[in-house]
Amino acid sequence: MTAPDPQRAASAGFDRMWAELAPVGRSGATGGYSRFAWTREDAALREWFAGACAERGLALDVDRAGNQWAWWGDPDAAVSAGAPGVVIGSHLDSVPDGGAFDGPLGVVGALAAVDELRAAGVAPSRPVGVVAFGDEEGARFGVACAGSRVLTGALPAQRALGLVDGDGTTLAEALTAAGRDPGDLGRDDRALARVGAFVELHVEQGYGLAGLDRPVAVGTGIWPHGRWRFDLAGQADHAGTTRLADRDDPMLALAALVQRARELAVRHGVLATCGKVVVRPNGVNAIPSSVTGWLDARGEDQAAVRALVEEFAASAADLGGTLTEESWTDATSFDASLADRLAAVLGGGDVPRLATGAGHDAGVLAAAGVPAAMLLVRNPTGISHSPEEFAEPDDCHRGVHALAAVVASLTR
Amino acid sequence: MTAPDPQRAASAGFDRMWAELAPVGRSGATGGYSRFAWTREDAALREWFAGACAERGLALDVDRAGNQWAWWGDPDAAVSAGAPGVVIGSHLDSVPDGGAFDGPLGVVGALAAVDELRAAGVAPSRPVGVVAFGDEEGARFGVACAGSRVLTGALPAQRALGLVDGDGTTLAEALTAAGRDPGDLGRDDRALARVGAFVELHVEQGYGLAGLDRPVAVGTGIWPHGRWRFDLAGQADHAGTTRLADRDDPMLALAALVQRARELAVRHGVLATCGKVVVRPNGVNAIPSSVTGWLDARGEDQAAVRALVEEFAASAADLGGTLTEESWTDATSFDASLADRLAAVLGGGDVPRLATGAGHDAGVLAAAGVPAAMLLVRNPTGISHSPEEFAEPDDCHRGVHALAAVVASLTR
Repeated sequence: MTAPDPQRAASAGFDRMWAELAPVGRSGATGGYSRFAWTREDAALREWFAGACAERGLALDVDRAGNQWAWWGDPDAAVSAGAPGVVIGSHLDSVPDGGAFDGPLGVVGALAAVDELRAAGVAPSRPVGVVAFGDEEGARFGVACAGSRVLTGALPAQRALGLVDGDGTTLAEALTAAGRDPGDLGRDDRALARVGAFVELHVEQGYGLAGLDRPVAVGTGIWPHGRWRFDLAGQADHAGTTRLADRDDPMLALAALVQRARELAVRHGVLATCGKVVVRPNGVNAIPSSVTGWLDARGEDQAAVRALVEEFAASAADLGGTLTEESWTDATSFDASLADRLAAVLGGGDVPRLATGAGHDAGVLAAAGVPAAMLLVRNPTGISHSPEEFAEPDDCHRGVHALAAVVASLTR
Repeated sequence: MTAPDPQRAASAGFDRMWAELAPVGRSGATGGYSRFAWTREDAALREWFAGACAERGLALDVDRAGNQWAWWGDPDAAVSAGAPGVVIGSHLDSVPDGGAFDGPLGVVGALAAVDELRAAGVAPSRPVGVVAFGDEEGARFGVACAGSRVLTGALPAQRALGLVDGDGTTLAEALTAAGRDPGDLGRDDRALARVGAFVELHVEQGYGLAGLDRPVAVGTGIWPHGRWRFDLAGQADHAGTTRLADRDDPMLALAALVQRARELAVRHGVLATCGKVVVRPNGVNAIPSSVTGWLDARGEDQAAVRALVEEFAASAADLGGTLTEESWTDATSFDASLADRLAAVLGGGDVPRLATGAGHDAGVLAAAGVPAAMLLVRNPTGISHSPEEFAEPDDCHRGVHALAAVVASLTR
């Protein structure tokens, strides 16, 4: 069986848009993308989005946080009528040397879903919006989901404007250079009120679907997650003359804690990672005077994550070290009835439901009280934030069709 | 019983000279020393040495490698007569924030030993030399024992002159700034030929004597030692989304190898240290794409060290890593009959004999064919290359007396 015409049109439109975006910020050397907030690449992406919306006759609006919104229908009339619009979309920026899919899949997919709805003759009962959030990855200024966080007020404008990139440029200066007035930056309740529901289509950043015969899953929430620093002190000494029995070598404590983190993660069924280590003085023939490591822990079960951290802290203390919490975010649950509707559209029953360990704009909106949920597209490599990130075109198309069906269901 | 007068005089002289040197290059903050080659501190130390030699009527000579030699008797006449002199000494430079004893103990001790011999009315049958080697620690230009290595030709002048310090200054430029002609730098066979035997008094850099009732040991040699780099590749991925089972995390391989190094060291009775680690990209929420570690291995038994390295390499390979040898130095044995004479002077029988894991100028001279040996003074903390490095004044004095007795024995 061939796909119905509206789906074929949407898939073709998706492929066309995908090809248009492909060269922007792409490294010839690695094939990875560098698309950072308020750079030339970012401007090219914003211009592309505006053009794609104009082609579709969608009315473009940029909120006080710099996010781009395109509306099919009148969002303010809908707010007045007590039935605000249905928004779909994601972001176009990337991590350094990132993949093509994380973000753009959801924006291009949203525009293609609009194409599909129109080709199918759908007349939505509520306005449909497509959003391209700004600076989701935080690659330049260090704060993830900066666009949605400023929008909801989770990131106050004054704090945002003072953020500094690796070259010492503030966000305020970057906004000015990009032709925006930094004084405009801030929480935008009017833009937020227009969002009656938000559905973000996103590439899966793991192997949850890779082993299954299902190309699309329902995202049920964002795991509780945090980061901790552990400091291990030792006695600096000469590697060539200090007897093993006389050593106080913090590198051995690091090794034990790296293994302990993994062991606890397996036992508690959560994720734990030691990805960063600083050794002092870091000399080949010097027993270190100190080693600092970082623990990243996340998982579906908040109690299990906290239990892991407690046991890890005890192990660090046993080794003479200390553990310091640098950040912690409670679990974010997406809207249950919205998630059920997504599952129903995907065929119900055994539709995979996955929580994600990564932060997303959908999570920021959910935390601000907006009914939000996600659709996750199968990633055969499981790899993300890397040039190797991938999703089959056919799976992307199925994600678009699911998104269109969800919007149709929500605007019937 | 009080010590005989010549010993009391030598001890007093030692203390006086020790006090003179104490302020040079000392940090008020840490109490540690920074005395690097061809700096202002180095010039002050050289000036001090020249003055101490002049006070004693010793003839000062500086060789083509920049080492200072002070002679009691005519060294060239002794060479012609086929009985070249007996040299004692060490170095005056330090590692960054180093201790007071590593080096200066042997130079000040040598001058005090000359005082003791003269006070005792010894008339040596061969010339006695006191040497202050330059740049033993290699703290500024990165090559240890640079003074003795240039002297013997182990470090060719052209390579030495191109060495660069942390500020980008070459050794050639540093020599010029210190008032020396870089064109003079080079192997100095005439200076080397004057050395019929070399005995270096040095603070022990471990706890070998700390548990014993003996303040001075005979150094029997320098352990075979080397350094190896191990490269562990992984798969960069998102710490928040990648399932444990799907990870290829090189940090776990590092942890296993750090522990493996210690386990093999215990089993083989040698030293193994992982003091340096480089993680890429070293991000808290990033599973590393690669980790590089370094192994420092040394021990009395060369076969045991090589066996450790072989087993470590196999473990690294099992973990998908590779091991690369960056340097290797065979065991250096000090002259056996000279060591026996040192032991006899120290009372014979159960005199402790220790090999050292650290490099020394005595090792460089031994490798060049000079009969050389060391006397090691008890270090109650075992710590070296640190402001905490220490030896009791009384133990230092005993080292001086032993050195004087050795010279008396060799020049009878």
